Amino acid sequence: MSHTAELIAVGTELLLGNIANTDAQMISEGLSQLGINVYYHTVVGDNPQRVRQAVDIARQRADIIITTGGLGPTCDDLTKVAIAQAFGKELFFHEPSAQRIRDRFAAMGHTLTENNYQQAMLPEGCTVLDNDWGTAPGVAFEAQGTHVIMLPGPPKECEMMFRHRAVPYLQSLSDGVIVSRTVKTFGIGESAAEALLRDYMNTLQNPTLAPYAKPTGTEFRITAHAQTEEEALALIAPVERQVVQILGDKVIGVDVSSLKEVCLNLLKEKGLTLGTAESCTGGLIAKLLTDLPGSSQVFRGGIVSYTDGVKTSVLGVPQELIDQYGAVSRQVAEAMARGAKKALGCDIALSSTGIAGPDSDDRNTPVGLVYLGLAFGDKCIVAEYRGGKVGRERIRRQSAQTALDLVRRHLTGLL
Amino acid sequence: MSHTAELIAVGTELLLGNIANTDAQMISEGLSQLGINVYYHTVVGDNPQRVRQAVDIARQRADIIITTGGLGPTCDDLTKVAIAQAFGKELFFHEPSAQRIRDRFAAMGHTLTENNYQQAMLPEGCTVLDNDWGTAPGVAFEAQGTHVIMLPGPPKECEMMFRHRAVPYLQSLSDGVIVSRTVKTFGIGESAAEALLRDYMNTLQNPTLAPYAKPTGTEFRITAHAQTEEEALALIAPVERQVVQILGDKVIGVDVSSLKEVCLNLLKEKGLTLGTAESCTGGLIAKLLTDLPGSSQVFRGGIVSYTDGVKTSVLGVPQELIDQYGAVSRQVAEAMARGAKKALGCDIALSSTGIAGPDSDDRNTPVGLVYLGLAFGDKCIVAEYRGGKVGRERIRRQSAQTALDLVRRHLTGLL
Repeated sequence: MSHTAELIAVGTELLLGNIANTDAQMISEGLSQLGINVYYHTVVGDNPQRVRQAVDIARQRADIIITTGGLGPTCDDLTKVAIAQAFGKELFFHEPSAQRIRDRFAAMGHTLTENNYQQAMLPEGCTVLDNDWGTAPGVAFEAQGTHVIMLPGPPKECEMMFRHRAVPYLQSLSDGVIVSRTVKTFGIGESAAEALLRDYMNTLQNPTLAPYAKPTGTEFRITAHAQTEEEALALIAPVERQVVQILGDKVIGVDVSSLKEVCLNLLKEKGLTLGTAESCTGGLIAKLLTDLPGSSQVFRGGIVSYTDGVKTSVLGVPQELIDQYGAVSRQVAEAMARGAKKALGCDIALSSTGIAGPDSDDRNTPVGLVYLGLAFGDKCIVAEYRGGKVGRERIRRQSAQTALDLVRRHLTGLL
Repeated sequence: MSHTAELIAVGTELLLGNIANTDAQMISEGLSQLGINVYYHTVVGDNPQRVRQAVDIARQRADIIITTGGLGPTCDDLTKVAIAQAFGKELFFHEPSAQRIRDRFAAMGHTLTENNYQQAMLPEGCTVLDNDWGTAPGVAFEAQGTHVIMLPGPPKECEMMFRHRAVPYLQSLSDGVIVSRTVKTFGIGESAAEALLRDYMNTLQNPTLAPYAKPTGTEFRITAHAQTEEEALALIAPVERQVVQILGDKVIGVDVSSLKEVCLNLLKEKGLTLGTAESCTGGLIAKLLTDLPGSSQVFRGGIVSYTDGVKTSVLGVPQELIDQYGAVSRQVAEAMARGAKKALGCDIALSSTGIAGPDSDDRNTPVGLVYLGLAFGDKCIVAEYRGGKVGRERIRRQSAQTALDLVRRHLTGLL
């Protein structure tokens, strides 16, 4: 049986534009993986009548209602009160939840105030969703043909509660299990990737195959429905092989988190170190690599040579090379990568030099042109990235990712 | 007269969780500045019946409906058709909009297909909102007591269309003008800042004073309603002086975009250059500064000394200092800043060394402890940042911002 869910976010801060409703995005993505339809999201402020109205509308359109926010002690447990009233339920004091709140406050060395116990008032007959990531417990119940799940609003808490509490509850509503695996790509646009897979995608029923365009690259999610996880994975395996084969070297991995993680893992496997020499990306490549804990095992460091003086003095790029070819050139990209490899004492060095814009340089180099160098052993490869006038941020982000992809391609023998 | 607006976002990609509804955040913030109430946001997919239903619900609750998305050629102008039906209007072919679309395609060298003309079909009697940032024109009209504004969905286009087209239309609905100015702070929490201003805030009626908590710091927006912009600014001026006086050196500026911009402008004014030596922030400080065009005028470059070897070889930090005090120490922060100043040939150098976590180092230095150095002339100041276990990303972001704030304080004589 196919289910339809509706999301209601409760929080005046959303209506004032202080924050975006990222909880809805995260939950929607999760529900789509579970094969649950979502036709509406609603955002409503901290106002009991309006929350009640949103719930009354939602229950006519969906058999699952998921609320986020309004569970904290300062908003008088607004969401729980409104939902309990809508479904004719009383709230009761749930001692185990009160104890968890006491323990949590004690562990943090904070003093508990009376209103914190409001969070332990829960609708009668509900399933309590223990919150290991914050104080307000979540709640799930079924009443009058509608399943209701209430989750806390702060995005990290909401995500953990959704993945570890709501998803198992939702899975129990359907026969069997739903399992998915995601094939991530880099360097191929959504429409080009879809064109390659469209015919194959249309032949599939279980598992299904769906594209997701992300800023870092297009992803394809393979989702299977079966009696057991093992059966689902067996259904996925041949489709995964086929998708990976069709997309070829654009595939950076399956169920991997990011290109930067793929690079760090390849470097660790091979026992190699990396360094960077960045001009137009201005430290972004180093920043991306060091986002991840444990990066210091393989990332030695970087030089942001934003001016010609730093290129010559720290990286040893010959001034004549800059004079002859310009700072944005294959020759300078190569000299920067070789210079970084030497100065940083790393096995592989990446370099970037280009025009992020909005203005060009005094040689009228086109905005969006970036040269990326990769030095290893006594060799150096230089790749050209042409982003066009897509804006400074996107040129920098895309060229940094393209640089990381050079490392992936080099370490997997694709270059 | 006070108005109430409701936002309807049209797009299946929002319901699948591919993107978050950032348009709603941007518009809500703008409406709050205009003094227009927002009680609900709705998100609905590319489905005419459901869009119609969302509109029918919204018009009962609000006198202004703003839609985003569903204006592109591939979605059959879904939003316009549904809205026109809801308000009993016909669509007509608007030749000037068709001409703008032709011109735009010609300028980009793209060929126009027949469905692009769908975008020039507009509801009768509407005000056309010319789109200088994309192809689909926006629309505004008043019918049966409701004002309807339709904007394109892509976030950048939506933002420009809202600010330059929808805001003037909305301002024309009220007597006089609404003007606001924003006091930005760094280094004071939302509740501490509010506590300082609460009594004063409560005495105000026109202008009003409202706090906004942002990841980069708390902002206070002063909003005045008057017959002319001049009168509004005259009402704001004394309040602005008072707020700036109360918040003191926590104020980074009024109507400024960010701390990094404040730093770059101060450096430009004083004709000074900056360089960086980053350990735990891993290139983030350099990345932030180079986010802004024109940063190359004052930012010379940076060294990401992620390993001890790079600290000693490139920055000249004595190995004995690292052995004696550890890489995360005041002494090493100072040596890094002094070393960067010399290696990069800049007037001022910033350094960072700390534990971003999740794990500590072999000296059991607490996670979240970061030392920040600022070298200038022959002096060096070292500041300590203690973020606690708030997560790697937040420790890195906060300590990078604190480093930039050191530059601001130094250049404004506060250190």
